[in-house]
Amino acid sequence: MAAMSARQDKQDALVVFTPSGKRGRFPLGTPLLQAARTLGVDIDSVCGGRAICGRCQVGVSEGSFAKHGITSKADHLSPFSVNEKRYESKRAKLKAGRRLSCQATLMGDVVVDVPEDSQVHKQVVRKRPEARTIELDPVTRLYYVVVTEPDMHNPSGDLERLYEALFEQWGIEEAYTDLRTLQYLQTALREGEWRVTVAMYHGHIRSYNRIVAVWPGFHDKIYGVAVDVGSTTIAAHLCDLSSGEVIASQGLMNPQIRFGEDLMSRVSYVMMNPGGDQEMTTAVHEAINVLIGQVAAEAMIDLTDIVEAVFVGNPIMHHLLLGIDPTELGGAPFALATAGSKTLWASELSLTMHPDARIYVLPCIAGHVGADAAAVVLSEGPHLQDENWLIVDVGTNAEIVLGNRHRLLACSSPTGPAFEGAQIASGQRAAPGAIERIRIDPETLEPRYKIIGSDLWSDEPGFEEATERTGITGICGSGIIEALAEMYLAGIISHEGVIDGALAAKTGRVQPDGRTFSYLIREGEPEIRITQTDIRQIQLAKAALHAGAQLLMDQMEIDHVDRITLAGAFGSHIDVTHAMILGMIPDCPLDKVASAGNAASTGARIALLNNNARREIEEVVKRIEKIETAIEPRFQEHFVAAMAFPHKTAAYANLRQAVKLPPPKHVTFAEADGRTARKRRRRPA
Amino acid sequence: MAAMSARQDKQDALVVFTPSGKRGRFPLGTPLLQAARTLGVDIDSVCGGRAICGRCQVGVSEGSFAKHGITSKADHLSPFSVNEKRYESKRAKLKAGRRLSCQATLMGDVVVDVPEDSQVHKQVVRKRPEARTIELDPVTRLYYVVVTEPDMHNPSGDLERLYEALFEQWGIEEAYTDLRTLQYLQTALREGEWRVTVAMYHGHIRSYNRIVAVWPGFHDKIYGVAVDVGSTTIAAHLCDLSSGEVIASQGLMNPQIRFGEDLMSRVSYVMMNPGGDQEMTTAVHEAINVLIGQVAAEAMIDLTDIVEAVFVGNPIMHHLLLGIDPTELGGAPFALATAGSKTLWASELSLTMHPDARIYVLPCIAGHVGADAAAVVLSEGPHLQDENWLIVDVGTNAEIVLGNRHRLLACSSPTGPAFEGAQIASGQRAAPGAIERIRIDPETLEPRYKIIGSDLWSDEPGFEEATERTGITGICGSGIIEALAEMYLAGIISHEGVIDGALAAKTGRVQPDGRTFSYLIREGEPEIRITQTDIRQIQLAKAALHAGAQLLMDQMEIDHVDRITLAGAFGSHIDVTHAMILGMIPDCPLDKVASAGNAASTGARIALLNNNARREIEEVVKRIEKIETAIEPRFQEHFVAAMAFPHKTAAYANLRQAVKLPPPKHVTFAEADGRTARKRRRRPA
Repeated sequence: MAAMSARQDKQDALVVFTPSGKRGRFPLGTPLLQAARTLGVDIDSVCGGRAICGRCQVGVSEGSFAKHGITSKADHLSPFSVNEKRYESKRAKLKAGRRLSCQATLMGDVVVDVPEDSQVHKQVVRKRPEARTIELDPVTRLYYVVVTEPDMHNPSGDLERLYEALFEQWGIEEAYTDLRTLQYLQTALREGEWRVTVAMYHGHIRSYNRIVAVWPGFHDKIYGVAVDVGSTTIAAHLCDLSSGEVIASQGLMNPQIRFGEDLMSRVSYVMMNPGGDQEMTTAVHEAINVLIGQVAAEAMIDLTDIVEAVFVGNPIMHHLLLGIDPTELGGAPFALATAGSKTLWASELSLTMHPDARIYVLPCIAGHVGADAAAVVLSEGPHLQDENWLIVDVGTNAEIVLGNRHRLLACSSPTGPAFEGAQIASGQRAAPGAIERIRIDPETLEPRYKIIGSDLWSDEPGFEEATERTGITGICGSGIIEALAEMYLAGIISHEGVIDGALAAKTGRVQPDGRTFSYLIREGEPEIRITQTDIRQIQLAKAALHAGAQLLMDQMEIDHVDRITLAGAFGSHIDVTHAMILGMIPDCPLDKVASAGNAASTGARIALLNNNARREIEEVVKRIEKIETAIEPRFQEHFVAAMAFPHKTAAYANLRQAVKLPPPKHVTFAEADGRTARKRRRRPA
Repeated sequence: MAAMSARQDKQDALVVFTPSGKRGRFPLGTPLLQAARTLGVDIDSVCGGRAICGRCQVGVSEGSFAKHGITSKADHLSPFSVNEKRYESKRAKLKAGRRLSCQATLMGDVVVDVPEDSQVHKQVVRKRPEARTIELDPVTRLYYVVVTEPDMHNPSGDLERLYEALFEQWGIEEAYTDLRTLQYLQTALREGEWRVTVAMYHGHIRSYNRIVAVWPGFHDKIYGVAVDVGSTTIAAHLCDLSSGEVIASQGLMNPQIRFGEDLMSRVSYVMMNPGGDQEMTTAVHEAINVLIGQVAAEAMIDLTDIVEAVFVGNPIMHHLLLGIDPTELGGAPFALATAGSKTLWASELSLTMHPDARIYVLPCIAGHVGADAAAVVLSEGPHLQDENWLIVDVGTNAEIVLGNRHRLLACSSPTGPAFEGAQIASGQRAAPGAIERIRIDPETLEPRYKIIGSDLWSDEPGFEEATERTGITGICGSGIIEALAEMYLAGIISHEGVIDGALAAKTGRVQPDGRTFSYLIREGEPEIRITQTDIRQIQLAKAALHAGAQLLMDQMEIDHVDRITLAGAFGSHIDVTHAMILGMIPDCPLDKVASAGNAASTGARIALLNNNARREIEEVVKRIEKIETAIEPRFQEHFVAAMAFPHKTAAYANLRQAVKLPPPKHVTFAEADGRTARKRRRRPA
C-alpha cells in the first residue's frame, strides 16, 4: 500500500477546484477540463475541449494552501499550448493568468479557480440587490461536434452520425430534430467540413433533447428574448443565453390600443366584430416582430440566432398572443382556455426569429390573474420565504398575491383605469410633460411639482427652461396619487374624500367647479386641476385594491402583512408612502414596502434563463388558491370601508408612526355656488 | 366460508367473455362493459359507456356450458334499456341478439361473445390470405368526454378541466394539446354543451398523449391515409381508423416526372437548377393533396377528419417529400440526411388534412434502399420467420432484402429502366394497349399475346374487337420478360442472349435488323418487335438484380434461398416462372415464389393502423445489414455470370424440374446482311 501510494504521488497530481472545493487525484497529463468533468465541477464549454470557444477558462491560485495540503504553482500545468496561442490569435487574448482548461494538463498539484464567467450555472447580476438571484440553467445550449463522414461500407444517415457524435462527445443519449434543421443538415455538415454547432433544446418536461438549429463549424452565441405583453406597452429584453445578460431592451405601444384602450373594450371589440380576435392577434404578433427586430438590430445579431422566447401577459393578452378568442374572459365565469404553460414553435405564432425557436408562455393563475402575475411571483419568490408578503401589480386590474412558502393566495381587483390617468380631468399617461411628483405646503396650500423629463421641482430655478421642450401637459398616475395624498395631508380634502370648499376663502387654488370644488395645480394652457370627480375615481380604484388585499388577508386569517411589494410599471413609479397615506395598500412598516419595478419582465427573463424555474412556476401556480372577488360577499363591505383615507376602520398604526395624518373632518358636498350651502348643512349636523 | 360463498352466489354473477375466455364474478347490476374493463377484455368504446357510439356491442351465448360451469341466458342480462332504444332510434338498429355492453347489466351468469368488430385490437382482413395479419392498434383514438363547467368558486382553465375528464373518464393521466385545438377548445365545449370528442395521438416513442383535434358533442369517425410516393405514381389509401378498412384508394402520376423520368434525372435537375428541389417538393405535396382530396371525396368525408398519414417512398422521394435536397443521394457515398423515421405535423408539409394530423414517415434502410423497402419488410415480415427469404422490389433500382428472424441483409441494385419498358424499342409503360403476356410456339415460332385491358389472347375470337378501343400500342415490362423467356425456350435466342439469325430461314418473324436480328411480334402500326439491343438491356437489368441477390447470399453464406417474393407494381405483374427462366431471381422451388403486390403500400397501411408496428420497423431497420453493391468487388463477377439465361454457372435445379430448358447453344452476332457471317464463324469453332 505504501509503495502504491508512493507511486501514486509520483504519477498523480492533486487538483482542487475553487470555489466548489471539489478535489481529486489524476494522472499527470490529464487535461483540467477532463478532471473537472470527472469531479462534477461546473465548467462551460461549447467546443468540447478543442480550444475554440474559450468558455472553459480557469486561473491557477499560486501559493501554499495548508487547507488543501497543496503547494500550487502555475507551472504545475503544462506550458501554454499551440492551441491556446491559436485561440488567442483567432479569437481573443486570454486574461493574464488564465488558461484554457481543455488545453492545460496536470504536471503537479494545483488549486484551480473557476471564475464565474466560465461556469454554465453562473449567477446573473440583477439591478436590485435585494432581489432573488437568477441562476443560469440554460434551456437551450450549444454543442460543437465533429461528425464522422459517411462511409459506403457502413451506410448511415447524416443525422444518425450527428447523434452518435453528440453521444460520444457530449454524452447526450437521445435526441430529436426539427424538420428545418434536418432540411439544412447536409449543407451545414459539408460547409463546416463535418464540424457543426447545434443548438439543443432541453425540454423542462421530462428529459427531452431536440435540435432546433445547426450551423456549419463553430457558432459562438445564441440568444433568447423575454417579452412582457402588456395591454398598453410591450417590452422585450434580448438576453445572451450563455451569460444571461440583457444585451438589448425595447418597448413599444401595444397596437391593440386601436381596438380598445383597456382590456374590456378589446374584448367588446371581439364580441362586436367577428374575426376581431384574429385582427388583434395579428397586430400583437406584428408589434412583437418589430420589437424583436429592434432588439436584434440594437445588439447587432442575426434574427436566426434567437432560439428561445418567453412570453408573459395578463389573461387577455395571453389568449390573444396565442390566437385564442378572449370572449370567455369578458364575462363570468371568466374561464381561461388554459391555465397551463405552453411550449410551441416561433413559427406557430409567425414570429420572426429562428422559426424553430421554442416559445414558452408562462401559466396563468386565473381568469383575471395572468401569466404576468405568475412571472411576478417567479421574480419575487413569495413562495420561498416565511413572511406574509403582499404583492400588488397595479394596472387597470390589480393582481394581488399574498402568502409565504406554505400558502399562496391570489385575486384580482377591478381598479379601473384611474391609476393610469384615464378618466381623470387633467390625467394623462406617464410620458414626458406629465406631473409625476407633487408636494403641497400645508400652510399656504401652494403646490410644487416635478414633471417626467426633468429633475427639477417647479419652484427651482431653471424649471421653466428645462420643461420648455415637453411643456407641462397633465398629471399621470403617480402624480395623482401624490396630489391626493398631499391634499389630504394639507386638509384640502377630508378623510372621506371631499374637497373642503371653505378653503376657497384661504386660497384661490380651491375653486368652485360645478356643484363641487376643485384644486388648481397649474394655471395656463393646459390648466391642471384635481376635481371632486377625480378624487371619487381614485377612491373607487384604491378601495378596490385595498378590498382585494383585505379579502386575501381574511382568507389567510391574518390582520396585517409583513411586507408589501408594488410591482408593475405603475407600481414602480408611485411613492409608497403616499400610496399608503391614501390607503391603497394595507398598513405595514414603511421600510418593508418597496417597488419591484417590472417584475413581470424579470420573471419572464428568469424563465428564459433557468430551465428549472419553468417547472417551479408551473408547480407554484397550481398550488396558488384563487379567490374570485366578484363572488365574495365580503368584498363589497371591505370596499366601502376602504373608500376613506387611509381607511374607515383600519388603524394604520405603522403609517401613523411615520406620518402625522390629519384628524377626521366631515365635509359634505357643497353646491357649486357657495360655501354657504355647505355651512348651512353643517350647522344643523 | 360456506355461508359467505352462498351469499356470493346470491349477489354475484359469473361472466365469461369469449373468445378471450376471461372470466370473473361481479355484483348483480354491474354493466358488462365495466366487468370487461376490470378483466382486461378488449371492448371498444368512444362514448365511454353513454350508449352513444354503439362500439361496445356484444352478444349472449345461450345454453349450458359445462366447460365454464354456466347456464347462460339472454335474460341473465338486464332488459333492453331506454338508452339502447334511444341508440337504435338515433343511430342504428342493433343486430339481432346484440346488446350495448355499457347498458346491459348482470342479472345472472352469462357467456358473452365479443364480436371482432367490437374489439379495439381487431384484425384487418387482407386480400392475400397468406399475408401477415394486420392487427389494429390505433395510434390516434377518439374519446368522448363530459367536461365540468367552469366554476368561479374554483377557477380553472377549460383545458385543465378537459384533462381532468380524460383522467376520470378514461384513465389518461398526462396529456398535451396542439395549439389549434386549444384555440378551438372553448367554442367546441360550449357548442357541445360541455360534451366533446377529442382525437388523441398516442405517440409510439414513450407514452405520449397529445390531443390533435376536438369536436363538439359526439364525433364518430376519424381517418388516416397511407401514401406510397413512387417515382412514377403516387398511391393513397384512406383508412377508417376504427375498423382499419380501406374505404377509398386513388393513384396519380408523380408530377415530378416533368423534371425527369427517373430518379437520377431528377437529382440532376436539382444539381443543374438551384431551387429545383423545392419545385419538386411543392409538386409532390400538391399531387398528394389532390390525391387526398380524391379519396376524401370518394369516401365522402371531411378533410379535417383525416388525423393521420403515413408515407413511404424510396430515399429520393423520401427526401423530396420532406423538403430535403436529394443531391447527396445522387453520388457516392449516397448519404441520407436521415435514416430514421420522422413524425411531424401535416401543416409542416402543407398537406390538406387536419393541419395537426400526425405524419409518420417510415425509416429508410440505406442511401438506395428507402422507406418503401422498409414498408415491404413490415408488410411481409421476413424478420418474423426462419426461412431464408429473398424479397425483391423491382423498379429502376431493385431493392433486395434477404434473411430471417436472426439476420436481415439489404442492398439495392441498379437495374435501370428496362423492366419498366423504357429504352426498349417497342417498350412502353404498363397501360391499356400494352402487351403484358406472350407465348411463342416452339415449333412455328408464332407468338400469341394478351394486352392490358383485355382478357383475350390474340388468337382467340373477338380479340380484334376487344382491343379496338385501346389499340395495341407496345410491350410493357412484364410482356418483355415473357417475350424473352419464350424466345429463349423456343430457341430464338441463345442462353447467351443472341438472336439466332439462322432462324430467319424458318420464320419471317426473325428479321435482319442492322447488324443484328430482331423478332417481330406484331406487324402493322405500331410494329412491335424485340431487338437484340432490347435483349441486352434486359440482360443487364436482370444480371444486376441477380448479382445483388447473390451478393446477399454470399454475405449470408447460403447457396440457395427458401422463398422468394416479388414486390412492387412491376413485381406483381410478372409471371414468376418466366422471371426465373430468365434468371432474374435465383433458383428456388417455383411454389415458393410469389408476388406480393404493392407491399410498400401495405406496409404503410400497417404502420398507419398499428402503433407497435412503427416501433417494430424502426428496430428492424436498425438491425438490417446494409450492403453497398457499388463497392463490393464480387458484384462485377456475379453480374457477368448472371448475364446468361438463366445463369452461366448456377444449376437452377428447381427450375429444370418444372420447365424444360433448351440446351446451351452458342450463337455469335451475325452481320445484318447474312447468316453466312455467323455460319462462317461457327464452322471453325
